[in-house]
Amino acid sequence: MMQPNIPETSLPRVVIVGGGFGGVNLAKKLRKAPVQVVLLDRNNYHLFQPLLYQVSTAGLEPDSIAFPLRGIFGTQKNLHFRMAEVKGVRPAENILETGIGDIRYDYLVIATGSNTNFFGNKLIEEHGIGMKSLIEAVQIRNYVIKQFEESLLLTDEAEVKAKLTFVIVGGGPTGVEMAGAISELRKYILPKDYPELPLDCMKIYLVEMGPRLLPAMSEFSSGKAREGSERLGIKVLVNTTVKDYDGQTLLLGSGEKIATKSLIWAAGVKGVPINGFEKDIILPNGRIMVNEFCQVKGYENILAIGDIAQMTNDPKFPRGYPMVAQVAIQQGKLVAENLTKRLRGTNMLPFKYKDLGNLATIGRNKAVAEIGKTKLSGRFAWFIWAVVHLMSLLGFRNKMVVLINWFYRYFTFDRGTRIIIKRGAANIVKLRQSVLQQEAEVHQPEHI
Amino acid sequence: MMQPNIPETSLPRVVIVGGGFGGVNLAKKLRKAPVQVVLLDRNNYHLFQPLLYQVSTAGLEPDSIAFPLRGIFGTQKNLHFRMAEVKGVRPAENILETGIGDIRYDYLVIATGSNTNFFGNKLIEEHGIGMKSLIEAVQIRNYVIKQFEESLLLTDEAEVKAKLTFVIVGGGPTGVEMAGAISELRKYILPKDYPELPLDCMKIYLVEMGPRLLPAMSEFSSGKAREGSERLGIKVLVNTTVKDYDGQTLLLGSGEKIATKSLIWAAGVKGVPINGFEKDIILPNGRIMVNEFCQVKGYENILAIGDIAQMTNDPKFPRGYPMVAQVAIQQGKLVAENLTKRLRGTNMLPFKYKDLGNLATIGRNKAVAEIGKTKLSGRFAWFIWAVVHLMSLLGFRNKMVVLINWFYRYFTFDRGTRIIIKRGAANIVKLRQSVLQQEAEVHQPEHI
Repeated sequence: MMQPNIPETSLPRVVIVGGGFGGVNLAKKLRKAPVQVVLLDRNNYHLFQPLLYQVSTAGLEPDSIAFPLRGIFGTQKNLHFRMAEVKGVRPAENILETGIGDIRYDYLVIATGSNTNFFGNKLIEEHGIGMKSLIEAVQIRNYVIKQFEESLLLTDEAEVKAKLTFVIVGGGPTGVEMAGAISELRKYILPKDYPELPLDCMKIYLVEMGPRLLPAMSEFSSGKAREGSERLGIKVLVNTTVKDYDGQTLLLGSGEKIATKSLIWAAGVKGVPINGFEKDIILPNGRIMVNEFCQVKGYENILAIGDIAQMTNDPKFPRGYPMVAQVAIQQGKLVAENLTKRLRGTNMLPFKYKDLGNLATIGRNKAVAEIGKTKLSGRFAWFIWAVVHLMSLLGFRNKMVVLINWFYRYFTFDRGTRIIIKRGAANIVKLRQSVLQQEAEVHQPEHI
Repeated sequence: MMQPNIPETSLPRVVIVGGGFGGVNLAKKLRKAPVQVVLLDRNNYHLFQPLLYQVSTAGLEPDSIAFPLRGIFGTQKNLHFRMAEVKGVRPAENILETGIGDIRYDYLVIATGSNTNFFGNKLIEEHGIGMKSLIEAVQIRNYVIKQFEESLLLTDEAEVKAKLTFVIVGGGPTGVEMAGAISELRKYILPKDYPELPLDCMKIYLVEMGPRLLPAMSEFSSGKAREGSERLGIKVLVNTTVKDYDGQTLLLGSGEKIATKSLIWAAGVKGVPINGFEKDIILPNGRIMVNEFCQVKGYENILAIGDIAQMTNDPKFPRGYPMVAQVAIQQGKLVAENLTKRLRGTNMLPFKYKDLGNLATIGRNKAVAEIGKTKLSGRFAWFIWAVVHLMSLLGFRNKMVVLINWFYRYFTFDRGTRIIIKRGAANIVKLRQSVLQQEAEVHQPEHI
């Protein structure tokens, strides 16, 4: 029979659900605190999501953006890691229910992050694919390359075009970066590896509901992003909504139809809350309401940080802070400090977001970057982007592997990791089903 | 409708089935020959099999030992690559039947390699897993790490032991290297990442039917391999056969039973021939009989090279050449030369195997190596092994990534790539089923 087997302790036990940016930074900062830390994650690795799109476009190996959590915390004596799925919470009893059994907590911090938000559109959810996990990114990569291979076997030009039309929905950084990376594949790999396929057979659409790309950045950066994307041959459609998608034809709000077999959804994320809370503290987008100390509304010893937490103490962000890594990191560190203060009997500090700027790449060597009033674009911005991400990566080995890949790509215009690991699915539907299936499959540890 | 779409030509068409060591070297050497080369493979990459065991023991990323075939042959103008599964051959019509349609050939070269040979034992085939493909290697890696994770959740020591008992069957280089690599995980990673698990809970068995390990090498090397393996804590059982395995208990020929959930089969390989030949030219081990020019018995324009070919022109190898990379490489190059000679009207040359020596690693920094009468063992042999494999890897990027990984591991004793990509299977049976399922799934290109 399986049980968490966490050693009992007289110290307060802080249970953190989620090994993302928030959870990892919180756990690290509790290294010397007089607590026992229990870190749970459904995976055994921390995923560096900002570079996920590089995996899905064959620019990086999956392993180089994933960091075994046990490797990160191996030397942290007060931390115990368990790979587990969380089912719910019983706040009255201070019990967290997980797939490996109940875990008692003194403090519970929910840092579960977010998932793709299809906004209730069932057809799109069934036929499109999001890109929030490593499995999805690898599947997208395999799928894209498989479309190239299979296009060689077709004679009907309309069929080839439908096969090679990729639509990315969502004009935020994720969508812009994906579109740019796929256009690199067309520009540099297609002519080299598939000389028999005419370049103009492949089309890339980037669809954004609002009036401009990168809505969270300045108009200057939006303009640069649009110029850059269009120069890469991407068809940018702003002020455009997506009405429906049946796996073959995408219907836009304007009435226009696009024949495509590949819809990648980067148009929104939503929180994935835990069961056990009152419904009125969970917002429609799945986020949990917290106060300025990250405490979940109505609870003293349950907190939430990062994407899953909705904090509205800053009039600049009336709908909560953006669901970005920096917010999660800063909130994680604050909670660690506040827990320590609390145990010492001193006052906690409220959260104050330090906006360290925004970055987005546009193709292989351009980017837009802004911090405060400073705006950069072009190659220099790309260089800044590369340095920031490289430094953020955990672990020397991963940094080196990523650096090698980038140098290789930059100088040879090659996407070195375009193999297929035979998880090809015949179409996006099967792809999505197999992702769900795999995730479902693994979340039940074997009962002996 | 899908069809091969290979441009018609007046040049003789050489169709090569298989992008392994044999097929790739043959195709490369035909670069300047007055022929059209069509290379087929069920995958779109060449797999560097000698390092597969490193993927399965979290030492290397899967991508670093896989080389996109289009990347290898991108600049070879006379070569066309198609990702396809071969179904059979119609020799009378010079037609090869594939999953993407019929392909006409003037010369057909079968270089399909080999698969795991379970020697007809259905139970073992169902409950054990071989290690001949990238999917299998990744699955083994995920599975091994998952056993560690789940062991933490058990309280019954017998259950933990069964979970952490790994049995490798087959004392050739593959088995010896796998056992050594898994013992590294126990020695260096288990205490670091899983301090709660007592080291002696994990046992590794290496079972060999014959009287010594590495039967293809000298007795000196066998002795060194055994000493080295035992010093790593591996229980070496020679003169031991495997009678049966039901997924829980392994029954040895001696009557001894081992409680294990993990049986890795490295005890033999067999050829995977194509349908369409007379039965009497296919041997029980799946190999196709060829003459000294690699011509399939009874055919002038059909040849076979590498693991799939059985050539018995050398009394030193009465049962055919060993199923190793060097044989495939040399035969591939010979066939290329002979095809060119034939087209010129000059005489072909018979195959003469140049034994370039044998290598096998034993753990992280020891190996045995022999060439001719020279025998090396220990760290220096390991260094030779590393250099030979590194140089054999195709592509600068892959060399660099592998080098980084090795340096990292060597100096930090860390296995950097031990993430699980959520393909965990609850036990080996499911694991094997999902491998078969995935392979079956992908071999049918979508019909539009």
